Amino acid sequence: MSAGKPIDFYFEFSSPYGYIAAELAEDFEKRIGRPMNWRPMLLGPVFKLTGQPPLVEIPIKGEYSKKDFSRSARLHKVPFRYPDKFPIGTVAPLRAFYWLNDRDPVKARALTKALYRAYFVEGKDISSPATVTEVAKLVGVDADALAKALEDPELKERAKKEVEMAIAAGVFGSPFFVVDGEQFWGVDRMPMLEDWIRTGGW
Amino acid sequence: MSAGKPIDFYFEFSSPYGYIAAELAEDFEKRIGRPMNWRPMLLGPVFKLTGQPPLVEIPIKGEYSKKDFSRSARLHKVPFRYPDKFPIGTVAPLRAFYWLNDRDPVKARALTKALYRAYFVEGKDISSPATVTEVAKLVGVDADALAKALEDPELKERAKKEVEMAIAAGVFGSPFFVVDGEQFWGVDRMPMLEDWIRTGGW
Repeated sequence: MSAGKPIDFYFEFSSPYGYIAAELAEDFEKRIGRPMNWRPMLLGPVFKLTGQPPLVEIPIKGEYSKKDFSRSARLHKVPFRYPDKFPIGTVAPLRAFYWLNDRDPVKARALTKALYRAYFVEGKDISSPATVTEVAKLVGVDADALAKALEDPELKERAKKEVEMAIAAGVFGSPFFVVDGEQFWGVDRMPMLEDWIRTGGW
Repeated sequence: MSAGKPIDFYFEFSSPYGYIAAELAEDFEKRIGRPMNWRPMLLGPVFKLTGQPPLVEIPIKGEYSKKDFSRSARLHKVPFRYPDKFPIGTVAPLRAFYWLNDRDPVKARALTKALYRAYFVEGKDISSPATVTEVAKLVGVDADALAKALEDPELKERAKKEVEMAIAAGVFGSPFFVVDGEQFWGVDRMPMLEDWIRTGGW
């Protein structure tokens, strides 16, 4: 396979399936030979548009989902503990990501995985900017600079635009992939996405 | 693998993913070496409980789903044409299935596949009892006996009970599998189900 245009990889920091996808994404990228563009977004505004409640709040399906989160994590050999507070608002992790991604995309991925693990393994409440900067410090980010940036109206506007672009791209769940205009929703669709890319679509 | 307790395979006759699963189910069963218990149900009463609209009526997600129906069908090499009328009520196919299944389970599977193809390939409206009996005739069913049975209050009650049992088993989508108490929702979870059975769970 030749390297093509990047695959857009959308995810929400409060999404267990987004977390699993982030853990799988770099091996996936290597196997496929196409770069991935990591693009965190927020499901809250999407749910307003689709009229959907958060997954775990849907009767019957919610109970299934809770079991499926940890089962899916076990399948993919990713550590997972259902957080005490779930779901949470993830504006702070989102802003931190885009701020860092403009400076050091490799570190932005490391921060993503560290934030996900802080939330879904250690149970830390990553909705808090203080927790975000604390986790960022662990992956070598200048915590003071980040803390200051998180208050910057320009960054807030930038992060908002990213969410709007995700919505404009039709993203309604996490993880969500767009490759050459084709959309794939769900960690369980990654094999389908892989087949699509390898074969050129079907 | 030794043959174990049957895998419950729930599906709704108006579900494209249920159709694809029914097309894959018999090869799956052979590979796995465990029998499957085919159990059609109705999503209408489930959606009332979960507060969900039919998939294609959900903004944004609905549009994705329409594309995903035919893409998934192509992936699994199953013919598919989006029906003019979708979704439809499927009480008649449901009743026909259980009536026939009590008499000839092999033929009940053949009827299932014939009904699905009538709807999702030929575009026939299988919500109509007349269409159901017409399709049933093609797979060698006594159409007069079936037409009479479809009016039988006892069969109506029996079919209703089956739907109640499906709901009691936690079924909220189609296809839906239950193996040894473990639930798997979606045609895209069939590989996970297969791995679960082969390995004894994880």
